[in-house]
Amino acid sequence: MRSVAVAVGAGAAALAAAVATRGGRTRLPRLPLRTLCGANATKEVIDPPPPKKIKVALCQLAVTDDKQRNIATARTAIDEAAGAGADLVVLPEMWNCPYSNDSFPTYAEEVGGSIPERCDGRLYNTCFVYGRDGRLLGRHRKVHLFDIDIPGKITFKESLTLTPGEGLTVVDTEVGRLGIGICYDIRFPEMAQLYAARGVQLIVYPGAFNMTTGPAHWELLQKARAVDNQLFVATCSPARSEGPGYIAWGHSTAVGPFAEILGTADEKAGIVYCEMDFGQLAERRANMPLRHQKRSDLYALMDLTR
Amino acid sequence: MRSVAVAVGAGAAALAAAVATRGGRTRLPRLPLRTLCGANATKEVIDPPPPKKIKVALCQLAVTDDKQRNIATARTAIDEAAGAGADLVVLPEMWNCPYSNDSFPTYAEEVGGSIPERCDGRLYNTCFVYGRDGRLLGRHRKVHLFDIDIPGKITFKESLTLTPGEGLTVVDTEVGRLGIGICYDIRFPEMAQLYAARGVQLIVYPGAFNMTTGPAHWELLQKARAVDNQLFVATCSPARSEGPGYIAWGHSTAVGPFAEILGTADEKAGIVYCEMDFGQLAERRANMPLRHQKRSDLYALMDLTR
Repeated sequence: MRSVAVAVGAGAAALAAAVATRGGRTRLPRLPLRTLCGANATKEVIDPPPPKKIKVALCQLAVTDDKQRNIATARTAIDEAAGAGADLVVLPEMWNCPYSNDSFPTYAEEVGGSIPERCDGRLYNTCFVYGRDGRLLGRHRKVHLFDIDIPGKITFKESLTLTPGEGLTVVDTEVGRLGIGICYDIRFPEMAQLYAARGVQLIVYPGAFNMTTGPAHWELLQKARAVDNQLFVATCSPARSEGPGYIAWGHSTAVGPFAEILGTADEKAGIVYCEMDFGQLAERRANMPLRHQKRSDLYALMDLTR
Repeated sequence: MRSVAVAVGAGAAALAAAVATRGGRTRLPRLPLRTLCGANATKEVIDPPPPKKIKVALCQLAVTDDKQRNIATARTAIDEAAGAGADLVVLPEMWNCPYSNDSFPTYAEEVGGSIPERCDGRLYNTCFVYGRDGRLLGRHRKVHLFDIDIPGKITFKESLTLTPGEGLTVVDTEVGRLGIGICYDIRFPEMAQLYAARGVQLIVYPGAFNMTTGPAHWELLQKARAVDNQLFVATCSPARSEGPGYIAWGHSTAVGPFAEILGTADEKAGIVYCEMDFGQLAERRANMPLRHQKRSDLYALMDLTR
């Protein structure tokens, strides 16, 4: 069986509790503080690494309140995806845990722990990235917490229990350069723009949109991030559970740099497979050179994390 | 007949050649150079003016190579929309002129001229905004020129004949605060983000997408700008002409701040009417306070035009 290159998922660490947590974030060349994403600033933008063709598996898992069962479900899905030749396996947001503020402390782990991650007395919504050899390559803590209140539709306040992450997360892997966001992070175009400026080829967003924002915005936001930044986007949601509590929209999806859907799920549990050819990025960017056409004399996006 | 409040369109000036061209851009309070669009910078973001409810007419005109006929067509449509009670009338990009580099110099006007606008020996792709009393309120010159080359699909290079505009255009009108972009400008999220930071309630994009980018991106980009910035977006295209030369996608559309379609056309000539209630902006922004949730400690969009 071919081994999995990268397991991205909120809490994939639970599958690899024996893995050392050292290292993590891949180092990139340092940029000047003011990262201009514009016509006169292309020398300050990092080119992507050489393109690869990869097979991606989005594992839309059925999540229950039984943590051990959730872990077993994830293990089975990863085995299946690896057996099918996937180079990159993506797990959903909060795949080990019902999505509720009550559950987050109960299901939290410490070192190498599942999502929610517990660290120094704080809880984070964290996505771990592992290499083919099981080594932890990176860890993204959700930067924009999900605090919304649409009366009668959906109200949630992650900040009651969770702490936001402190930075952006770019991870160089065997399959390519990944940028990681979690769910609500996708609503902030600046994050995707900075990932593009750092040469990211694929942004992966584990996420659990709901029955209000899902049909209205889930696919739209993925396509917008892909086409505005001319890169690939992949999302992975839990399968829909009709029980009490938070109901996920499902519809895990992969999108290409022209906003084309490469693969998508309905609301049920299952694995979506698709091919991504990162070589298309250069072609799309030659056809429509948006990066070079930005008006850096009129606006500039600053990356304050470097 | 109720008079039109604002005629927005590439070249609406041709309808009002007697109007003085003085004044123009509405003055807003000056911001510090570094306009942060983030959590800690809300005091630097300008709130919108008091909300109004308006009726909008998008005039998807059939454009021919007969300039006088195009002007007559526009005049008829504006009369009809005004008669129907429209507060805001929008005309398409290049409504007086076939969309080709050959045509731009031939159809260009000087003072108060139609689109393409001729000024100091240069040609611009320009959208004029008029008040209810016929006074010129603002003028937007396309900032991002349409230079793309998708072999076998669509190749165009506006920069062969046109000069890009020098700034963003926010216009305070009787109906509300408008931000103006033209066609390809919609591909640059930074522009819409800065308009939102300046309190714009509605971004108007006259545009003429084509048969490749139209089906792939036209509606997507409008919805993305609307939902990311929680404001209204309106686009107005020429009707599709199946003759030789550039074929416009049509599908003039109005979108609300939750990405909801308020009105849309097919490819044929006609007028789309819809209602916009700018009071919804405060509600949407209270439900999902994206502006306050931006991580201004991690990224910042700078407005370099102020």
